[in-house]
Amino acid sequence: MDPDALAKAFVEHYYSTFDANRAGLSTLYQDASMLTFEGQKIQGSANIVAKLTSLPFQQCHHQISTVDCQPSGPAGGMLVFVSGNLQLVGESHALKFSQMFHLMPTPQGSFYVLNDIFRLNYA
Amino acid sequence: MDPDALAKAFVEHYYSTFDANRAGLSTLYQDASMLTFEGQKIQGSANIVAKLTSLPFQQCHHQISTVDCQPSGPAGGMLVFVSGNLQLVGESHALKFSQMFHLMPTPQGSFYVLNDIFRLNYA
Repeated sequence: MDPDALAKAFVEHYYSTFDANRAGLSTLYQDASMLTFEGQKIQGSANIVAKLTSLPFQQCHHQISTVDCQPSGPAGGMLVFVSGNLQLVGESHALKFSQMFHLMPTPQGSFYVLNDIFRLNYA
Repeated sequence: MDPDALAKAFVEHYYSTFDANRAGLSTLYQDASMLTFEGQKIQGSANIVAKLTSLPFQQCHHQISTVDCQPSGPAGGMLVFVSGNLQLVGESHALKFSQMFHLMPTPQGSFYVLNDIFRLNYA
């Protein structure tokens, strides 16, 4: 599969899952996975999903502006860099964000998220 | 060295070199290095520096807002995620940007940039 198409498919899957059922993201992370969320460092699928599901909003919608990807080296990983807008239900203005993912291949031929760094881009 | 301190030192070195002498960035890239600049894909140190030195402004100043880093896996790499403002000389408003670097160790005990993805964050 074309890397750009794979990155786009991952991004669509990730944010549609985030917006519909955040707990469903657990299958995308493993014990070694790292999330840095607004500077806070969290490790492991269970801790990451606990953080994401405890964010202080119930409903949100991610709108993606750009998706860039590059292979990350001989281990078969892929870097995915996203920019977009995060609309919280009940808020009038969307928040701009940037996020990067480092996807690594699984023995089953799929990918998991080894690295995840999220930042809001304040105006 | 503490990874966060290393990331911060790299970021300060990278942007001070960019702002003072863009051609001097060539030593940070290798032939396998990749840059995606506003969606344009460029490979190799010479091509990357040619792109950076041909950007349509002469003087600029990067102001860094946030630096996040994570180890990228068993090969000893490090992911560095930056947000900040780019001020062009003669322009009244700074441009917001996000950029990620994947640093890989060299046999000499230093690092080079294997992956570099840059995006302006338009308001």
